[in-house]
Amino acid sequence: MHSPEMILALDFGGTKLSASLVNSENLKQWLRKARVSATSDARSNIEAMCRLARQALGGRIPNAIGVSFGGPVDFSARRVLLSHHVPGWENFPLGDVLQAEFHAPVIIENDANAAALGEWRFGAGKGCSSLLYVTVSTGVGGGWVLDGKIFRGANGLAGEIGHMVIQPEGPVCSCGKRGCVEALASGLSIARDAREMLAVEPHEGMPLRQLTPDPSALTAEAVSRAAQAGDQLAQKVLQKAASALGCGIGAALALINPQRVVIGGGVSKSGEVYWRALQDTVHTLVLPGVRVDLVPAALSDDAPLWGAAALALNLSGSV
Amino acid sequence: MHSPEMILALDFGGTKLSASLVNSENLKQWLRKARVSATSDARSNIEAMCRLARQALGGRIPNAIGVSFGGPVDFSARRVLLSHHVPGWENFPLGDVLQAEFHAPVIIENDANAAALGEWRFGAGKGCSSLLYVTVSTGVGGGWVLDGKIFRGANGLAGEIGHMVIQPEGPVCSCGKRGCVEALASGLSIARDAREMLAVEPHEGMPLRQLTPDPSALTAEAVSRAAQAGDQLAQKVLQKAASALGCGIGAALALINPQRVVIGGGVSKSGEVYWRALQDTVHTLVLPGVRVDLVPAALSDDAPLWGAAALALNLSGSV
Repeated sequence: MHSPEMILALDFGGTKLSASLVNSENLKQWLRKARVSATSDARSNIEAMCRLARQALGGRIPNAIGVSFGGPVDFSARRVLLSHHVPGWENFPLGDVLQAEFHAPVIIENDANAAALGEWRFGAGKGCSSLLYVTVSTGVGGGWVLDGKIFRGANGLAGEIGHMVIQPEGPVCSCGKRGCVEALASGLSIARDAREMLAVEPHEGMPLRQLTPDPSALTAEAVSRAAQAGDQLAQKVLQKAASALGCGIGAALALINPQRVVIGGGVSKSGEVYWRALQDTVHTLVLPGVRVDLVPAALSDDAPLWGAAALALNLSGSV
Repeated sequence: MHSPEMILALDFGGTKLSASLVNSENLKQWLRKARVSATSDARSNIEAMCRLARQALGGRIPNAIGVSFGGPVDFSARRVLLSHHVPGWENFPLGDVLQAEFHAPVIIENDANAAALGEWRFGAGKGCSSLLYVTVSTGVGGGWVLDGKIFRGANGLAGEIGHMVIQPEGPVCSCGKRGCVEALASGLSIARDAREMLAVEPHEGMPLRQLTPDPSALTAEAVSRAAQAGDQLAQKVLQKAASALGCGIGAALALINPQRVVIGGGVSKSGEVYWRALQDTVHTLVLPGVRVDLVPAALSDDAPLWGAAALALNLSGSV
């Protein structure tokens, strides 16, 4: 038996900062939660996060702090390696800084891994012995949880399904390679494909054109809304992206045969046309005998924050 | 402390049956080893294997028996599911039969998983915390070893890199799908591609034509020999197969980021042209930060047998 612990969970997202407090004896809901928009440099984001954290703590001392960061981290050194969105994070000792500020042990993880653990512990992957989590939003990230632990791999880069190459001659990816899952299935690539199709098919995509008259302002969300309103061009674009994601997931099923695959991120909310194409592709690609259990995420944007809480719970010794 | 144990290792290969005995206190070499050609039905293979085993035992009682089988098995039920080469193995209780015959506990594994464990414990993967093993011969198989244990996945089908689809419109695979790694990189596909190229390029591939005047008798081994003798057509065929294998391995590195990849099987002995194409492809496909450690297998045809011994050692409690 041990006394309840106060777990502070922090999420440094690309656009939002969140801080939450949870009691280890009642993990069903946050005691307090605070959120603000992210700013454009690392230093001011850290200051804003510390204010949020103090607000969430309300004078209490946390027993452990879990941090999800939207970018690559060095888990064992508790450092941020860099952010693709915000300058100033290069090789930043975030663990040390937070520990000095709040006098509690700190654990740091990238957001896809944290979200994977969050979904495993509190969301759509509860109780699975092996879980692959894939998040599809601006980019495509992933993480996998094996026997309740994040599987990081030899260089901390396991689960990078977004950078699995599925079309070697395909479009250039943010990582510089060609034909990664991310270059074909991300929100940015959905917007790009829709723009290209609108340009070559002047008589199609009317609902999409009405939603976004300026093609340069087109987003994956608009494509998804148009598709759900029956726009066939938008549906084709989504189906193509879903098939590309399905190829990556099919490869993952062949290699790691996880018990369940959980799909999160904004693009995963693109409706039935998207999910049908995804399921169809995956079923076409797997060996007989591999059970396909592909479900939507349950925790939405809070998955990394819940994952950060789960990491901190492990750190503090609470179960 | 415990007394030395006698470990019997059996390998039911597609073309050969092998039985070996090893002493748990001297794992460097077999005490005895016997091998015969496989026959064409399950029953007579089992009888031949029991004779071999008695020969290897020389009157001793084994403490544990490890079995590698060339085809899918149900690990926990200790049953063979089927053989792709030999009739009569369908849902066969091989574990029970051998246990009744030799009065020792039996553990059964498919050959790719057994070979992966063999290379991890005794061969090119010694000491690796995570190892992906790939065997390229008639087909393409794989297995991976995580913290010293075979990772089987939710349905016992993890590590099936041969049936990862990398070219959805590609040639039909033995499994019925299209564009699997096996359909593009196996020995059979190398022979098929060479035959096709010889047919469309009547003035190329002279060394290969001399080695195998009858195209229908062409093998991957002949292609490899011709390539090593400088035949450019044969080299192109091998490079294409190596690139396809490299695509599968690149995807595996993105997903599981293993510490090392060990490549075995007859095709992996195809020489420098093959290995260079394989290494080049893999290096092109991985994210910066992922260390590529790709090495040839060390145990050759004995890998499954050593893996069977390692399984039996775990079973008997010897380390």
